[in-house]
Amino acid sequence: MAGSRYQYVKKFELPDPILPGTFMVLRIDGHAFHRLSEVHKFAKPNDERALQLMDHAARDVMNEYKDIVLAFGESDEYSFLFRKSTALYNRRQAKIVTTLTSLFTSSYVFNWSRYLPDTPLEYPPSFDGRIVVYPSQKEIRDYFSWRQADTHINNLYNTIFWALVQQGGETTTQAHAILRGTVSGTKNEMLHSRFGINYNTIPARYRKGSVLVQERVCSLCSWIFELPPASSDDLASTAGETPGTPQQPEQAPSGSSKQKASKKAHALTRIELHHCDIIGDEFWDQRPYLLAE
Amino acid sequence: MAGSRYQYVKKFELPDPILPGTFMVLRIDGHAFHRLSEVHKFAKPNDERALQLMDHAARDVMNEYKDIVLAFGESDEYSFLFRKSTALYNRRQAKIVTTLTSLFTSSYVFNWSRYLPDTPLEYPPSFDGRIVVYPSQKEIRDYFSWRQADTHINNLYNTIFWALVQQGGETTTQAHAILRGTVSGTKNEMLHSRFGINYNTIPARYRKGSVLVQERVCSLCSWIFELPPASSDDLASTAGETPGTPQQPEQAPSGSSKQKASKKAHALTRIELHHCDIIGDEFWDQRPYLLAE
Amino acid sequence: MAGSRYQYVKKFELPDPILPGTFMVLRIDGHAFHRLSEVHKFAKPNDERALQLMDHAARDVMNEYKDIVLAFGESDEYSFLFRKSTALYNRRQAKIVTTLTSLFTSSYVFNWSRYLPDTPLEYPPSFDGRIVVYPSQKEIRDYFSWRQADTHINNLYNTIFWALVQQGGETTTQAHAILRGTVSGTKNEMLHSRFGINYNTIPARYRKGSVLVQERVCSLCSWIFELPPASSDDLASTAGETPGTPQQPEQAPSGSSKQKASKKAHALTRIELHHCDIIGDEFWDQRPYLLAE
Amino acid sequence: MAGSRYQYVKKFELPDPILPGTFMVLRIDGHAFHRLSEVHKFAKPNDERALQLMDHAARDVMNEYKDIVLAFGESDEYSFLFRKSTALYNRRQAKIVTTLTSLFTSSYVFNWSRYLPDTPLEYPPSFDGRIVVYPSQKEIRDYFSWRQADTHINNLYNTIFWALVQQGGETTTQAHAILRGTVSGTKNEMLHSRFGINYNTIPARYRKGSVLVQERVCSLCSWIFELPPASSDDLASTAGETPGTPQQPEQAPSGSSKQKASKKAHALTRIELHHCDIIGDEFWDQRPYLLAE
Repeated sequence: MAGSRYQYVKKFELPDPILPGTFMVLRIDGHAFHRLSEVHKFAKPNDERALQLMDHAARDVMNEYKDIVLAFGESDEYSFLFRKSTALYNRRQAKIVTTLTSLFTSSYVFNWSRYLPDTPLEYPPSFDGRIVVYPSQKEIRDYFSWRQADTHINNLYNTIFWALVQQGGETTTQAHAILRGTVSGTKNEMLHSRFGINYNTIPARYRKGSVLVQERVCSLCSWIFELPPASSDDLASTAGETPGTPQQPEQAPSGSSKQKASKKAHALTRIELHHCDIIGDEFWDQRPYLLAE
Repeated sequence: MAGSRYQYVKKFELPDPILPGTFMVLRIDGHAFHRLSEVHKFAKPNDERALQLMDHAARDVMNEYKDIVLAFGESDEYSFLFRKSTALYNRRQAKIVTTLTSLFTSSYVFNWSRYLPDTPLEYPPSFDGRIVVYPSQKEIRDYFSWRQADTHINNLYNTIFWALVQQGGETTTQAHAILRGTVSGTKNEMLHSRFGINYNTIPARYRKGSVLVQERVCSLCSWIFELPPASSDDLASTAGETPGTPQQPEQAPSGSSKQKASKKAHALTRIELHHCDIIGDEFWDQRPYLLAE
Repeated sequence: MAGSRYQYVKKFELPDPILPGTFMVLRIDGHAFHRLSEVHKFAKPNDERALQLMDHAARDVMNEYKDIVLAFGESDEYSFLFRKSTALYNRRQAKIVTTLTSLFTSSYVFNWSRYLPDTPLEYPPSFDGRIVVYPSQKEIRDYFSWRQADTHINNLYNTIFWALVQQGGETTTQAHAILRGTVSGTKNEMLHSRFGINYNTIPARYRKGSVLVQERVCSLCSWIFELPPASSDDLASTAGETPGTPQQPEQAPSGSSKQKASKKAHALTRIELHHCDIIGDEFWDQRPYLLAE
Repeated sequence: MAGSRYQYVKKFELPDPILPGTFMVLRIDGHAFHRLSEVHKFAKPNDERALQLMDHAARDVMNEYKDIVLAFGESDEYSFLFRKSTALYNRRQAKIVTTLTSLFTSSYVFNWSRYLPDTPLEYPPSFDGRIVVYPSQKEIRDYFSWRQADTHINNLYNTIFWALVQQGGETTTQAHAILRGTVSGTKNEMLHSRFGINYNTIPARYRKGSVLVQERVCSLCSWIFELPPASSDDLASTAGETPGTPQQPEQAPSGSSKQKASKKAHALTRIELHHCDIIGDEFWDQRPYLLAE
């Protein structure tokens, strides 16, 4: 029973290379997460534990695939930026998008109980993934601006919506009706006058989303480069907030020794979590390597 | 901060439709499963628990995506056949391949402890996925023949290899050397003469792989159609062997009532696990609907 | 000045293979032929010379590319069917579609003066081309039925429209208004009652379009196979109507000697022009090789 | 005979958009031009008439498709650069590549007798075309450098090769043998010492190829912008050498009035033919609009 007479079917596997010299963005989205959040009683408008779990899964992907230099997460989605010249899996589209979406999913399920210890996972959640190709730095900047602007818009809406419901005693139908057609200013004003909430004091995680960045570390001293300080409420070091960190020593600079040995030419890196603005120039000016080769 | 000025970046998301009127096969493969099996001490040459976990994940995918009519699994891979006319996600390639690979992965991690209760999962495993498009029934038959022939070739090799190592006291290097260049007949003979093993008495699961098929069930009486009986060692009903079955009543025919209500025109179906030959005509002749529209 | 430092740009040339085991149809359409027909005063509703020129160009393409087994032309378009297993240019899409569209265009310009000797070509006309891939015989039959049904619909409309204008003294605006919303029966009736034209006596070329088919010729005697006779008004042998034939002896069976020598296994063929029905089964039943491998 | 039941076959026409924000290069190559040049006794190593005909066809394409800003030709090939933001045919790949290859072919055949009046065209020549997509200016510069370096390498080889054959009395086999493995310096030296030819005095057309560029013209005075002068032997104005110019007033600036009326925002342009260096920065620095949006 030699299999050789059937092997011709392999010829139907067609190549799917991604154009060289372009930036790839992989965006992973939760599949039917409305139901997932209902079933598992996620806090509204934001469930910090669920967001930290997303960050953890994203970090696992970045640790495994070093050509990802930046990731941005909000709600049930995460976007990953590869360095322009990546040759990961020879830039084969299906291979990249499936393997990374799979690893993200796997980490999400694997780490669920760490972040939601009192909420057993009821069924296996899933994600979809897509790769979008951008030719230049400008579009990459605009892509991430688009996602962070979306974070703001959604969070402002959800914040006032759930205040109306949870504190204001409105039904969800009434709350939608009240907010229909309102602009940002009106929502901010309503939040302040009716509920005494200053939107800007809401945690940066909710307002800005999560920014995971492969920070370059000095190769001799293993210290991070001196960076101009971000405003303190917008920058949260991973160490302070991620419960997973103590258990994940391989993410710390100590892991760099192996990398240093095998790839001397590369600077040492470590992945840092921020909740900072990425629409303005400051973030990018401080990290020119993100959009370099 | 309106996001509208950035929305042009959505234009870079290009369509990726799969040609209508063709059969799609999704093949999911374990990523670095050699390491996974080492770390978790999978039994050699076959670990029944790990194979059952694969079957469980595949069944979850089929339960969620009813347009999959057949699946075939061996080792760390699973192939899924969609009915030819499926319009799942408008036949968008990346959407299909990522969502299903993600769900398979999720189920694998989610159900790990059910099948390997004494072996904690050490890290999140991942899979890759690809969709191959075939224009006709002939290629689909040959595709599945290719995979099942591969199952046989690999299992015969692994069976004698591990017999040489585990019972014959050979090193793995010696075992490879002994087997180099041998044909099937020689391996069968060696298995019998040296270790007293009759290859044909090895469980069908290992020799034939796993065949998950959406069997059509009579819509009035909820009984499976009368089928010519498969040889008893090649056909194993799910009920008897899958620990997950009692907890998954939605996979049993009872779940069909909902389906019956919403899609009267469709016959009721249920997913059955076999370990039978799919190279010959018998399997396909009994189920003409698999390769129909 | 070695060019080697620039050669990396070749890496941006990505593969574009067409799925194996499928039928390719190449459709070539005139670009801005409304203007071309105005400038060169093509006869309305049909200009036989211009149609013969299209047929000539199509025949040149079929003579050069033997894997084309059938072509259908109407107005300013021509569709070419490749045998399913063609490996022309390794099935590279851009290579096939551009080379053949180019040759068609070239022949059209090259042979213009033969068919329209008193009408100098005023400027270079152009065509576009596209390849559509079909998985099965059924879709191929339906594709050609679609084109021939279109021929009928357009020709019936144009015949009555130009009768109203040329014989009935209507303006083109009035003629369009008269025909708006009319069904086939009404148009036929109007044609007969007002202009005494029996639509079925109009030349088959206009009603049925042009069918160029690679007819199989007996390899021993060089005579065409005995075929059931088509109705005489629907079948026109090329010899009687194409002015180009005498100058193109390579299209006659004599050219087969070279082919016979080099490809003994293939039957001898010659390209015949018909204006016959290709919607019904008869045409296809007589030529099973068209849709075979 | 309604065609509606067959129209589903249109669903098999899949989209093929080219990534936005990228540069497209269309390269057209002669198909079997070795034979064409033999049959029509093209002069060796370069036939000026045949090259001028290529230039004429390229100019016709640029006149018709204003989004082409630059073209480079050598031997039987021509490369066309589109401005980055072109929306021609909604960036549909097959539509663009076939229509333009067709027009190029058509013009080549249409204008043959103008450039080779004593050499009747024996049969219809054809071309293939391909579109290559480049993400950035750097790759565009390198693409054109690659083609012009290739022009030099081929022309130097052909010049000495045909000198050996035509003046040196060598057979073509001997000539190839003499040149095997020689570097540029050796060929230059051989050309000078054996045949008294100074390579640099050979016409720029042969050494540099043909550069067709959409030069920007002042919108008020219709005079070309003041440009730093190119060296005189490398720059040939079209007026002096293209026989077609007098008959083609639509290519002259006078044609701009229509363009001015309809697209006020655009500068007036006209297409100029140069035989100048495009590897260095000077050509590009003078025309920043070529690589702009």
